[in-house]
Amino acid sequence: MIKAALSVLLVLVTVSSTFGKYVPKTGRRIPQTLSRGWGDQLIWAQTYEEALYWARSRNKPLMVIFHLEDCPHSQALRKVFSDDNELQKTLDEDFVILNLVYETTDKHLSPDGQYVPRIIFVDPTMTVRADITGRYANRMYAYEPSDLKLLISNMQKAKKLLKSEL
Amino acid sequence: MIKAALSVLLVLVTVSSTFGKYVPKTGRRIPQTLSRGWGDQLIWAQTYEEALYWARSRNKPLMVIFHLEDCPHSQALRKVFSDDNELQKTLDEDFVILNLVYETTDKHLSPDGQYVPRIIFVDPTMTVRADITGRYANRMYAYEPSDLKLLISNMQKAKKLLKSEL
Repeated sequence: MIKAALSVLLVLVTVSSTFGKYVPKTGRRIPQTLSRGWGDQLIWAQTYEEALYWARSRNKPLMVIFHLEDCPHSQALRKVFSDDNELQKTLDEDFVILNLVYETTDKHLSPDGQYVPRIIFVDPTMTVRADITGRYANRMYAYEPSDLKLLISNMQKAKKLLKSEL
Repeated sequence: MIKAALSVLLVLVTVSSTFGKYVPKTGRRIPQTLSRGWGDQLIWAQTYEEALYWARSRNKPLMVIFHLEDCPHSQALRKVFSDDNELQKTLDEDFVILNLVYETTDKHLSPDGQYVPRIIFVDPTMTVRADITGRYANRMYAYEPSDLKLLISNMQKAKKLLKSEL
């Protein structure tokens, strides 16, 4: 009940704080989120540089998701990905995460080409874990919704960090 | 009245769609937005690569804002920036926009050093407009809240595109 009251309060605050502000000709838009639906409760890095910095400084593996908003395969994976609480919790606690709809200039992030959806792990030593792959020989870093268990097991692999050569 | 009803409906949909989903130990978080408070109704690029691509393909100038969430100067500028409807409308219609809390690897975006807040214009020919500066000799791309008129006039300069040498 208190939660419901708080929600209503939050809405009132949101509505009043946007009063009188710029509204596009085409009507009010829903603000874009960094999560893009892959986990609204998670804290996402915005750029690859930022994500690498977080991975190094927190000594956590990085998961990079390449996807497209209007790609049905991306959408299907996103649905099961965002609905899986175990996966979301592990990501929240043990990973640095980044989702991108635009390729970076770093070719290490496309070991076998640029396609979506594609999930690449990067070790905090800045090494792309090209060894952590999905089920498909022609698109080694692609996952389908039915591959969620494999993805979770790959996350466990990524959590076993490489030894730094320092 | 219809708008109010729609708002309530939107809230109900939002609340119900998050029911049963992962909630962090520290409690529910407000999803991060790409705008970070610089204009919730505007469409922001996520990365510099993406922004450059949009600028070229739409033949529009790019504004890059470097800021930090916990920097009081950034916060003060953000307040007047997001409250100014003329500025927001011009950005929405005539610019590609990007705000970053992390520096890129491209040193052209820090002509006189890395500081915040800092606003750099980039022409669709991919040329950083180092000639479009603010009021301060020691931090040429910094703006204070009182410099908003200058910023708007600089936006007009940026809209006069450089001639491509093609």
